[in-house]
Amino acid sequence: MKFVIQKDRLVQSVQDVMKAVSSRTTIPILTGIKIVADHRGVSLTGSDSDISIESFIPTVEEDDQIATIQESGAVVLQAKFFSEIVKKLPLDTVEIEVTNKSNYQTVIRSGQAEFNLNGLDPDEYPHLPQIEDGKVFQLPADLMKTIIRQTVFAVSTSETRPIFTGVNWKVEGNELICVATDSHRLALRKAAVETEFEEAYSVVIPGKSLSELSKILDDSSDPVEIVFMENQVLFKMKHILFFSRLLEGNYPDTSRLIPTESKTTIELNTKEFLQAIDRASLLAREGRNNVVKLSTVEQNEIEISSNSPEIGKVIELVKSQRIEGEELKISFSAKYMMDALKALEGTEIRIQFTGAMRPFVIRPIMDDSILQLILPVRTY
Amino acid sequence: MKFVIQKDRLVQSVQDVMKAVSSRTTIPILTGIKIVADHRGVSLTGSDSDISIESFIPTVEEDDQIATIQESGAVVLQAKFFSEIVKKLPLDTVEIEVTNKSNYQTVIRSGQAEFNLNGLDPDEYPHLPQIEDGKVFQLPADLMKTIIRQTVFAVSTSETRPIFTGVNWKVEGNELICVATDSHRLALRKAAVETEFEEAYSVVIPGKSLSELSKILDDSSDPVEIVFMENQVLFKMKHILFFSRLLEGNYPDTSRLIPTESKTTIELNTKEFLQAIDRASLLAREGRNNVVKLSTVEQNEIEISSNSPEIGKVIELVKSQRIEGEELKISFSAKYMMDALKALEGTEIRIQFTGAMRPFVIRPIMDDSILQLILPVRTY
Repeated sequence: MKFVIQKDRLVQSVQDVMKAVSSRTTIPILTGIKIVADHRGVSLTGSDSDISIESFIPTVEEDDQIATIQESGAVVLQAKFFSEIVKKLPLDTVEIEVTNKSNYQTVIRSGQAEFNLNGLDPDEYPHLPQIEDGKVFQLPADLMKTIIRQTVFAVSTSETRPIFTGVNWKVEGNELICVATDSHRLALRKAAVETEFEEAYSVVIPGKSLSELSKILDDSSDPVEIVFMENQVLFKMKHILFFSRLLEGNYPDTSRLIPTESKTTIELNTKEFLQAIDRASLLAREGRNNVVKLSTVEQNEIEISSNSPEIGKVIELVKSQRIEGEELKISFSAKYMMDALKALEGTEIRIQFTGAMRPFVIRPIMDDSILQLILPVRTY
Repeated sequence: MKFVIQKDRLVQSVQDVMKAVSSRTTIPILTGIKIVADHRGVSLTGSDSDISIESFIPTVEEDDQIATIQESGAVVLQAKFFSEIVKKLPLDTVEIEVTNKSNYQTVIRSGQAEFNLNGLDPDEYPHLPQIEDGKVFQLPADLMKTIIRQTVFAVSTSETRPIFTGVNWKVEGNELICVATDSHRLALRKAAVETEFEEAYSVVIPGKSLSELSKILDDSSDPVEIVFMENQVLFKMKHILFFSRLLEGNYPDTSRLIPTESKTTIELNTKEFLQAIDRASLLAREGRNNVVKLSTVEQNEIEISSNSPEIGKVIELVKSQRIEGEELKISFSAKYMMDALKALEGTEIRIQFTGAMRPFVIRPIMDDSILQLILPVRTY
């Protein structure tokens, strides 16, 4: 294997596949990045067996010579060193050559700097999942990034019920519904998609995979192809293939958790409310549960308060555009509320309560594609 | 105590005095910030008993009303909460009032937000060191910041010989000489000062104090007054007093460590040399000591290399403007060399060696005010 390549492109690709490389793997070869060069270009692969990422650098793109392949071949190099080395090379181009085919000695040259790395046998690197026939649809990259951001924070971090560590992606007709819950709160986001699926299709994608994917997605509206396979999902971007295993098991039906009626409705400015909760949580954090209280006051105002006997207490009145229904005193986690408010888009939100002990729902006014649900905390 | 104050000024002062507050103090009241209001303005104090910082906010500055004092008084508030709270207040002004003088209950109001904090008795807060007659001289703030940056990194982090955890500031005639060493490397910086000292005066200032001071110093050339007292040093800025205790004991005479002759002289471009060392250290870091090798090559070139049997090796040739004297092969810590090169100003440096086992000296060409000394590592 021998090729010369533009440093910037190599650095970017290495950075992308590094998102799948874990230093804590039990499979030694997965601490490496697999490099394959052939007449089409150079492909890099990183994997922690849950997530696998392949990034491809073509020899020529838009009349620009990006890589010149002098000899085809493959090698696996230690990801930690390879990624640090390429970043710090002195020139704009890099030459990479396997100089000893029996022990995979690899030379990385750039200007006067010459690294000699011990490589590993690429045939020992696990094969990526085969791309089988699967259920295929598309989403723009920026929308996918938004959907992930608005749901993935609500997955469970506990392995007690592993299925809740993932986000449920369900395609029903021409609608994608993404749901995450840790059983204390729930985030739901819908989006219109074009599919030819004959019946509803549901998978559970590990939250960690989606978080890593989201770091690779750019803010363009370029389409990303999503392929649901038997145990895997594949996200296909322009030069990147992102594979993730799926979580096994059925995701519980969460639609029954979402109240359909409402006893108290409060409309608020998102930013003002978020800042008031943030201030109240300064003292609440010291307590066990980071719990703040919300109560309706006369005249279109709500009161946010929290109390930490050793430190002190905080009270703040927040104006509401509209308060309808029963009076209410309710307590909830300031962290969950802030997470939910940050995930919502829109300057105004509507919160619908069905009593102090029942889950409540937060939605942007004028937007039905997203909702956040939070279970209150019993304090009153 | 009751006053209204501009939030920005309060936030800035709190941030300054927080540099002295430690959460790991054994004296409970030092987890607080002392606030004193009188007709002149508001002063805040933080201290960990090694460092004490007082920041003063005048009622009026340049015709701008910064604080309005309604009632003089004092209180101590938990630094951690107070600093978080003031940052997050909704309006540009803040009202602070001690509402209960027997238990120091303090209300912080801004817009609709009202915090009620449990305060502490200000009389229990330790007094700042008295400003006695001392040895006084001045330095511009930006120069002082540079001097600290160029020396403080070389102090020892080990308490084996506590004196080496400080930087030796010595005033001799009209020269300030600052020296730090951890016995493996040494940093020395001189600066011209105007003093009326009758004889040389030497103190040892804890490295930690200088690091914190450096965060408070701005990049202006405003004068900072330095007052050496019996056990303390005071740095007086416009609205800030920064006290640090001094380390006890005599700082060893380090001038004899600095070689006066040279067997090999090498001149290099600082940036090219630093980057080559950085690259070599990528592999060297894996080894025990982060050691790289330098050897002179014919024709005004030096070779930088390092070797880590499990990972690989790196070799790089670096052009030298001038090599004079004996051939040389020497090994040293890449970290120490990078620290030294980053501290030096100037695009070209001269390194003077007196053999592979003797300390060597790095200086900018054309600047005698600074030098860095490094002890080699025995590997050849």
